[in-house]
Amino acid sequence: MSKAGVAGLLVTHLPDLRYLCGFTGSSAALAVTRRHARLFTDGRYTTQAAEEVRGAGVAIVSGGPAVAAIEWLRTQPGVEAAAFDPSSTNVAELSRWRASLPGRMRRSFLAELAEPLVMPLRMIKDADELAILSEAALIGCQLFEQILGVIRPGLREIDVAAQLEYKARQLGAEGMSFETIVASGERSALPHGRATPTPLPRKGFLTLDFGIILNGYSSDMTRTVYLGNPTAKERDTYEAVLEAQESGVGAVRGGARCGDVDEAARSVLRKVGLVEAFTHSSGHGVGLEIHEPPRIGAGQTTRLLPGMVVTIEPGVYLAGQFGIRIEDMVVVTRTGSQVLTPAPKALIQL
Amino acid sequence: MSKAGVAGLLVTHLPDLRYLCGFTGSSAALAVTRRHARLFTDGRYTTQAAEEVRGAGVAIVSGGPAVAAIEWLRTQPGVEAAAFDPSSTNVAELSRWRASLPGRMRRSFLAELAEPLVMPLRMIKDADELAILSEAALIGCQLFEQILGVIRPGLREIDVAAQLEYKARQLGAEGMSFETIVASGERSALPHGRATPTPLPRKGFLTLDFGIILNGYSSDMTRTVYLGNPTAKERDTYEAVLEAQESGVGAVRGGARCGDVDEAARSVLRKVGLVEAFTHSSGHGVGLEIHEPPRIGAGQTTRLLPGMVVTIEPGVYLAGQFGIRIEDMVVVTRTGSQVLTPAPKALIQL
Repeated sequence: MSKAGVAGLLVTHLPDLRYLCGFTGSSAALAVTRRHARLFTDGRYTTQAAEEVRGAGVAIVSGGPAVAAIEWLRTQPGVEAAAFDPSSTNVAELSRWRASLPGRMRRSFLAELAEPLVMPLRMIKDADELAILSEAALIGCQLFEQILGVIRPGLREIDVAAQLEYKARQLGAEGMSFETIVASGERSALPHGRATPTPLPRKGFLTLDFGIILNGYSSDMTRTVYLGNPTAKERDTYEAVLEAQESGVGAVRGGARCGDVDEAARSVLRKVGLVEAFTHSSGHGVGLEIHEPPRIGAGQTTRLLPGMVVTIEPGVYLAGQFGIRIEDMVVVTRTGSQVLTPAPKALIQL
Repeated sequence: MSKAGVAGLLVTHLPDLRYLCGFTGSSAALAVTRRHARLFTDGRYTTQAAEEVRGAGVAIVSGGPAVAAIEWLRTQPGVEAAAFDPSSTNVAELSRWRASLPGRMRRSFLAELAEPLVMPLRMIKDADELAILSEAALIGCQLFEQILGVIRPGLREIDVAAQLEYKARQLGAEGMSFETIVASGERSALPHGRATPTPLPRKGFLTLDFGIILNGYSSDMTRTVYLGNPTAKERDTYEAVLEAQESGVGAVRGGARCGDVDEAARSVLRKVGLVEAFTHSSGHGVGLEIHEPPRIGAGQTTRLLPGMVVTIEPGVYLAGQFGIRIEDMVVVTRTGSQVLTPAPKALIQL
């Protein structure tokens, strides 16, 4: 805050709040000065806030928590303005906050942060966070291994999702980090193919993309397996995606530009004429949110730093035919990188 | 749009998009004029958009879909400005949109909607939507019945959640509409007590608050049961919450003010000295989102209309002792109301 010239900070994005003070409720605002911090929430969370919050006082309020936080910031010595994050504040909310201020302060007291303050901290995971993310990722690998024993032609995609999610709970997951993707046969060409009642085919690809939540942190992994015997084209395409994925993973290291990591994966598919079928970016950060900065996309100039955790997940989608995606979570280390999802990637035939 | 004097509309809130044109992907913008509508999304959704979208053209773009939608609106005859919803647009996004416009248009072309245009439509469910919501709610009731056969002292809260979610999938749910709440013993005093590894006690309340997603629509219900034999105080408190809940349900009808429905529930708890322990509002709308307008809260002047679906869910939370909440989904009908979650509410002892 000193470096950014910020005397008062208003935090309303819930993952930021959780990161800064441990609170996991669904409605709150955190006010921070250079000397104090106070969390504002409502009566539903009296007990929970007392148990969870560290490093901040707690105030239970009956109106909007952000308006109460702004009011408190106004009373703090040396606080001439409250900085807020424009990417997590909606336009209507900001109007309400402004309307709550006395006329003379409406223009001046609330100031957009020029650069995010909390996300750069959240991007670099500390040892405790890495331990949780690693455990979450390993539970993902166990799930993949267990679900292989379940998959058979005729089983519906939603049955696969149901079993996966049940096993996730049994292994200690608090929930899934996003809607489980189970996309079989032609549906594997849908990059975001949620599980449907479609029965698994006797022959064809099956893409499984799923993640669990552990202590608030998300895992994310994708594997594509084959039911029956693949054609030469299917096998070659799989090998190309795998090579692209490994090339991307290989490019992850401290100092590397995110755009260059993306290109490391993309260029492999370009060489074999499949780049048009790779219709999304190569990956994203993951932590308290399933999608966080940095984005591993074409032209991104952000540089990776030790402690960042990103996904590497190139895919190829041929509409009406099939699709393939392979995804790992990778942590940037001081000496290079480490894959957190060491499940097999050679083509599995079931 | 005519009534609101809007010639061009930019829709970016995903549930609104889904409502208007059927698209279920995770990144898109819809541009609407009085004559045309066009959905903008990215290459991941080429196939899916072609399958899902009705009533709008589809354009696949590689940059931000909202910026592309704004560009298209600029080219439409008679469109002098594009209206956007300030409650679903963040401040940083709006700056990016403005920056994409030629200088002379930056101030004038993007206009905040004075009143939401899509949510008032979404609040009134049509017959198809009510059929889905009713089916989702009935699946919730089945789940409650099935889970009663599983609950026993010593089972962990997360095991209860796992079984509930697995059975939900088996009954056709696409997923859960929010993180399942399983709060036992003293933890039942946490209004938002997510399932933890805590074993169920031999004696005490157990609150189950859960919902499923069916065709994109959410269900939501809460029941509180008792393990063992309740004390007189526990039983009396349960009866008070039940009376409050039934009083709230009884007040639901076309024309009623939301604040009056809230008061119908709250006043029952006031009479028995428990109103301080009822720390949240009485309910909320439910549909494509788990929390939608209208809010059934103190002082709310919105009037209920036939086709609205709301929850009625008063609760009492005594920190360090116990908590109780009972919640139904209720649809406003032409002649009154109908409960969509007809699971038993008399105190169940297990």
